Amino acid sequence: MIPFDVIAELAIQTPSKILLLVMDGLGGLPRPETGLTELASATRTNLDALARESICGLTVPVAPGITPGSGPAHLALFGYDPISCLVGRGVLSALGIGFPLEPTDLAARINFATIDEHGIVIDRRAGRIATETNRQLVQLLRGIQIPGVQVFVETESMHRAVVIFRGPNLSPHLSDTDPQRTGVPPLPARALEPAAEHTAEVVNRFIAEAARILKPHRPANYILLRGFSTYPHLPQFGDIYKLRAAAVATYPMYRGLARLVGMDVLPTGETFADEVETVRTHWAQYDFFFVHFKYTDTTGEDGDFTAKVLAIEEVDRALPDLLALGPDVIAVTGDHSTPSLLRAHGWQPVPFMLRSRYEVPDDVQEFTERACQRGTLGRFPARDVMLLLMANALKLEKYGA
Amino acid sequence: MIPFDVIAELAIQTPSKILLLVMDGLGGLPRPETGLTELASATRTNLDALARESICGLTVPVAPGITPGSGPAHLALFGYDPISCLVGRGVLSALGIGFPLEPTDLAARINFATIDEHGIVIDRRAGRIATETNRQLVQLLRGIQIPGVQVFVETESMHRAVVIFRGPNLSPHLSDTDPQRTGVPPLPARALEPAAEHTAEVVNRFIAEAARILKPHRPANYILLRGFSTYPHLPQFGDIYKLRAAAVATYPMYRGLARLVGMDVLPTGETFADEVETVRTHWAQYDFFFVHFKYTDTTGEDGDFTAKVLAIEEVDRALPDLLALGPDVIAVTGDHSTPSLLRAHGWQPVPFMLRSRYEVPDDVQEFTERACQRGTLGRFPARDVMLLLMANALKLEKYGA
Repeated sequence: MIPFDVIAELAIQTPSKILLLVMDGLGGLPRPETGLTELASATRTNLDALARESICGLTVPVAPGITPGSGPAHLALFGYDPISCLVGRGVLSALGIGFPLEPTDLAARINFATIDEHGIVIDRRAGRIATETNRQLVQLLRGIQIPGVQVFVETESMHRAVVIFRGPNLSPHLSDTDPQRTGVPPLPARALEPAAEHTAEVVNRFIAEAARILKPHRPANYILLRGFSTYPHLPQFGDIYKLRAAAVATYPMYRGLARLVGMDVLPTGETFADEVETVRTHWAQYDFFFVHFKYTDTTGEDGDFTAKVLAIEEVDRALPDLLALGPDVIAVTGDHSTPSLLRAHGWQPVPFMLRSRYEVPDDVQEFTERACQRGTLGRFPARDVMLLLMANALKLEKYGA
Repeated sequence: MIPFDVIAELAIQTPSKILLLVMDGLGGLPRPETGLTELASATRTNLDALARESICGLTVPVAPGITPGSGPAHLALFGYDPISCLVGRGVLSALGIGFPLEPTDLAARINFATIDEHGIVIDRRAGRIATETNRQLVQLLRGIQIPGVQVFVETESMHRAVVIFRGPNLSPHLSDTDPQRTGVPPLPARALEPAAEHTAEVVNRFIAEAARILKPHRPANYILLRGFSTYPHLPQFGDIYKLRAAAVATYPMYRGLARLVGMDVLPTGETFADEVETVRTHWAQYDFFFVHFKYTDTTGEDGDFTAKVLAIEEVDRALPDLLALGPDVIAVTGDHSTPSLLRAHGWQPVPFMLRSRYEVPDDVQEFTERACQRGTLGRFPARDVMLLLMANALKLEKYGA
């Protein structure tokens, strides 16, 4: 692992252009009937053609066996240590809904929950209430006043919401109030350092007010808070890699993650073709494009094998337009696997290909999990991707004499 | 490398069952006449069938080129850093003979040695005396009395024995008395910290008494001590992985190593079929089974190629009975290589296979060193095995949001 200050010393600005296409949740598992994964089942005319000109492999997002959330998975692809640079759940929730976090804001994830008449948690997810109910309850919680602190409450979906506290001297060093099991009372937020005592009081007061307001709204008659976190100050892409970097993503969380590392986030549309068009429009202005495609993940999380195949084919069809822009280096991969079989993120390594005129080609003929197993890159840490991209764009000088 | 506290946060208890079968010293080298290793020469009907359903690779026990002892090799397979979690030679010797170590016992390995009339070491192994002679001399050494300290002396084999000191305030921070070469006098045990001065006196007094007793017994007229160590307190399997873990092993050292990490050690018989029967009997009570088969190592250390082939075939024949128990995840590997050609442990990577419904299969058709070279896991650290097992048993939650 090369420290960022060493990379920053080696990185140089050049006119060459890098394109990193992330198909969220790309990796899959075979459907028992055919023995083929989603990717292997898809029509991949353009992806396969690119694979034949690329070096291939499988990325390990965080570590073997570890199933990453979107935060660690993307930070690894951007070259960050996903263990030491963990972004808090509260901040990720805020990024996920596109909330404009300010540097000192404190965010926490809310779960609507059910407590019984003795104050015992009997459902940590309030029976997974409808998102519309969530919106109505959030509207009520917005009425809570806490002196000296502005409070923002926002719906995520179902039982999930996010709260942002804005005010002086708020500390993220608080314990979660979610006891992580039923049959026990909720926990109070406790200060994990003396400087957080004031914040604990603010949070516990918010929870008490919320409990009073929500009392008649069983099953959603309580809230559990976790993942107290403030906006993390990560080393910035421009400083580490000397890149003018742009992000093209339709979902707020990925736009937020890109902003965290110092990318410019470009306005774009809903489809992959829209995203390609956005890249084209801004092609001259940037030397690094992170293009995020979401629907390979959402379809996998839905357990919808066929829809995931179609999502892959949507990318395959538009790929030539992206290649026509003439990137000096292009890599196509995912941030993690989302096998339809699991209906969730998985730990499985992720297909990866990188096309550059400066690598010895391997024998991989198609862009599938099995074919990438035999690629020259083998299984390798996702954290290595940025350095491979930079090197192949001739943007890294010699290390040492 | 994922810290244990992070793993502990992700690990959940589920009913799924993991089986880790360790064929000690499994890896080998080709016999020049055939170009085939022991494993490649064996009839492997059932191992090969399992390989076709598995993902395969070669584990690197500690680091490339490093030949591990049984301690580091097993600790790595159990997910521990074999460098920072080194178990002392004295403790390993005590575990190896099944000595019931107490938490504050101080253990050291003894070599019977020969000194000349000037007190110079002329043979560090006393001409490799017979084990029976060793037993007679150990009987004599048991007569040594040291006020305030209980002393236990036990035969290992040939010139090897172990001494355990039991008493208050004994420190392992002592230098070895074995000078590691001949032509020089033995070294005194020196305290490596002030708190160890008392222990150094105890040990040097024991050595002086032993020298007096052994004087007439040339070539075994002296003892050299090394590897002073106390029982290490390693993070426990139940705490890290939330596993109810059982060990099935015929040899004391492996039973001791399993106990070190918090496994329950089950009584079993001598053959692999006995071990399989033990697993069957306790199948319902545990969710992780470490099954250790010793004879692939002993035959390799004997340099007996054919006997090692037969040992492998013994496992192959009983494997279906193990599979019939229906483990959700099974891995078969070795702790290290013991090529008959070397008559000793080797650094060579070790064949590995893992069967799970949640991995994209590779093309490996047989369970041999060469076939595993082309497995999707490639060469990978043995330390990753536990996380792969845990993930495939769906016992690890998502890391980060």
